[in-house]
Amino acid sequence: MSREERFLKALDQLGCSFEAGLKLGGDYAATVRDDNRIYVSGQIPRVGDEIIHPGAVGGDISLGQAQDAAKICALRGLALIKDHVGSLDEIKAVLRITVFVRSADSFTQQSEVANGASFILRSVLGEAGVHTRTSVGVCQLPKNASVEVDMIAVLNPSSAHHAA
Amino acid sequence: MSREERFLKALDQLGCSFEAGLKLGGDYAATVRDDNRIYVSGQIPRVGDEIIHPGAVGGDISLGQAQDAAKICALRGLALIKDHVGSLDEIKAVLRITVFVRSADSFTQQSEVANGASFILRSVLGEAGVHTRTSVGVCQLPKNASVEVDMIAVLNPSSAHHAA
Amino acid sequence: MSREERFLKALDQLGCSFEAGLKLGGDYAATVRDDNRIYVSGQIPRVGDEIIHPGAVGGDISLGQAQDAAKICALRGLALIKDHVGSLDEIKAVLRITVFVRSADSFTQQSEVANGASFILRSVLGEAGVHTRTSVGVCQLPKNASVEVDMIAVLNPSSAHHAA
Repeated sequence: MSREERFLKALDQLGCSFEAGLKLGGDYAATVRDDNRIYVSGQIPRVGDEIIHPGAVGGDISLGQAQDAAKICALRGLALIKDHVGSLDEIKAVLRITVFVRSADSFTQQSEVANGASFILRSVLGEAGVHTRTSVGVCQLPKNASVEVDMIAVLNPSSAHHAA
Repeated sequence: MSREERFLKALDQLGCSFEAGLKLGGDYAATVRDDNRIYVSGQIPRVGDEIIHPGAVGGDISLGQAQDAAKICALRGLALIKDHVGSLDEIKAVLRITVFVRSADSFTQQSEVANGASFILRSVLGEAGVHTRTSVGVCQLPKNASVEVDMIAVLNPSSAHHAA
Repeated sequence: MSREERFLKALDQLGCSFEAGLKLGGDYAATVRDDNRIYVSGQIPRVGDEIIHPGAVGGDISLGQAQDAAKICALRGLALIKDHVGSLDEIKAVLRITVFVRSADSFTQQSEVANGASFILRSVLGEAGVHTRTSVGVCQLPKNASVEVDMIAVLNPSSAHHAA
């Protein structure tokens, strides 16, 4: 299977589609390119107009739901890189993801939530999806989201160059 | 208007001045340069010895006050880059800002707070101020600040080279 | 004293040893290299199977204990870079650390906690340990840790090249 096929399969398994577009809030860019690196803004699990599995993990929602939310965040990040550069095949490496998990008071499984995002990167990108990660528990996220994930990736030098 | 003039106008509109200097706490550097990139430490809305609009957003202070605090954080970041490289005109691109918002329990407008910082970057730097952004809600920030903003920017290759 | 000797002395002063190895949780890499930069995943103060000084700073544990936890996080980061590149002498600069401090409600000394990590970088690496820093207070961290620190560093161009 190609990366694109694995990406679509992962979306399908979550019952999601990005065909309505990837809405962003606020006065900023989804991606900014710096030479062969690309920075992706923090993504919440938004599909169309809906935030999937909102609330505090370990309170309003379960670990499994939060992992699905983290998967959607990672898939949005990949979709935005594809929008920028034309193909998921242009991703050479993922340097860093930071995973913010809205946590109920006693919830300490932020790493397990973040594994949802890591799983997507590995299963879609293979070895190129290996990444460093920071996972933290926060008290609130925009629009009551349960998870937010940002990303820095490296693109192939020959890929189309749009920005920065 | 030049970037410098727009910078000073934005400061003036907030009723602030950095003439007393940009105090930093702790044992670290305000900026570190890596080739043409510059990393800026997390900035809180400090003007002289005072933290402007301290407290939790949505509780102690309003959205509008938090946006002003975010503007001051962004202006401090720009001022520190200028201190490093001599002129705001040397900023070629802004890769990333991360905006931490100290949030009352039910406050979910972190993106709207972060728009204050994004507004400053766009209005002072124009197209070079387009950036990626991550906004999260946290329970506490240093010195009871309501907002903290860090930044990574790209400088012109020909700019003075001081560090890293 | 060499960097290696200062590193071991700092570990010894904390009564710690990494001889049991540096366990990581989750499906990600400890470090990813991008040309001469190296990204280090968020480190919690784990020594062997134990999290040192868990809990909320300003509640469960004191400022001094949290500073020791921050020191261990920074030492783990250095140890992981050494694992990747063979020697601490290959570190040319530290661009950024982000210090997440699990904070009791009224605790606002996140910068003072982060000084523990900054102290280690400066005392082990000397001038190369100068860095930018962002310190924030969060409500929870993985495995009930009190502190988490991630890092981006620059390596000597001639150093061994393993990844990305």
